[in-house]
Amino acid sequence: MSRLRVIFHVNETPKWDVALANVTNLLKDVGDAGVEVLVLSNGPSVEAYGDEGKVKVMEALAARGVRFLACRNSLKNLCASGNLCIDENNLPAFLGVVPAGVTELIRRQAEGFAYIKP
Amino acid sequence: MSRLRVIFHVNETPKWDVALANVTNLLKDVGDAGVEVLVLSNGPSVEAYGDEGKVKVMEALAARGVRFLACRNSLKNLCASGNLCIDENNLPAFLGVVPAGVTELIRRQAEGFAYIKP
Amino acid sequence: MSRLRVIFHVNETPKWDVALANVTNLLKDVGDAGVEVLVLSNGPSVEAYGDEGKVKVMEALAARGVRFLACRNSLKNLCASGNLCIDENNLPAFLGVVPAGVTELIRRQAEGFAYIKP
Repeated sequence: MSRLRVIFHVNETPKWDVALANVTNLLKDVGDAGVEVLVLSNGPSVEAYGDEGKVKVMEALAARGVRFLACRNSLKNLCASGNLCIDENNLPAFLGVVPAGVTELIRRQAEGFAYIKP
Repeated sequence: MSRLRVIFHVNETPKWDVALANVTNLLKDVGDAGVEVLVLSNGPSVEAYGDEGKVKVMEALAARGVRFLACRNSLKNLCASGNLCIDENNLPAFLGVVPAGVTELIRRQAEGFAYIKP
Repeated sequence: MSRLRVIFHVNETPKWDVALANVTNLLKDVGDAGVEVLVLSNGPSVEAYGDEGKVKVMEALAARGVRFLACRNSLKNLCASGNLCIDENNLPAFLGVVPAGVTELIRRQAEGFAYIKP
């Protein structure tokens, strides 16, 4: 059987805990090498990249091969709203930034990735 | 690269703003001609077709090629619940009606459309 | 046209009513034989298998061919949280248990099932 591939979509901050638990359970079930995992966040949920506790959990998962992606539009909106400005040069090293999160969700599914909305 | 295709699924009224912003960002990112966009609403969220402000935003997106689809079951349920009766002959011209929204979501994914739940 | 296939994803208890209504509408629209339906629940929503009213609705749908699947991790977590312990040997006969719900969601999409999050 070919390797599983999935993109998780997080767009609301309270869903992060569920998403990270889902990813953890998935790796436990099929093994780190058994699945390619992307976690794409857009909307207000990108604020989690400024949350030390969550970043630690993400870092541990990234060390196991999970890729985290943030929507640049959403980072800009978060800053413009006066809530939190995350300097893109200051982002956690494990984090990738894409111009538009929705485009990434579409492209990956077109490549054969499954979609899960926690 | 072939044209991207996506169906957005809206079933709760408060998700409309996110969905419409997602679609706007998507068109900005890949261009109006770069993606085929369907927005399917079912459940109580179909009440948005009676909301002038939202309809205006949808109209502008429809003029750029986005197709909006409403679930007929949901329009009937909305009316039966006493909340709002939208006469199907009176719907905004840009809006299509499908017998069952869930069937549309399945058929489109079978055709290769990506699925996004804002 | 080949038979439609879909996996519904339920992870929050309040979403069960929408999910079961969606499945009912789907079968009404395309006929029981026109679609292969899986309903996968994980997270706290697995508590619904201890809810007599919901189980009755599920049983009726299962008799029409719908397959219900629960995440074993989630059943264990529900019990560990002190909320409800559902003995796996005591589950409704129509219910299947999978080791990890997210893996099932990925595998099924890889097989060509559409994904719907009610």
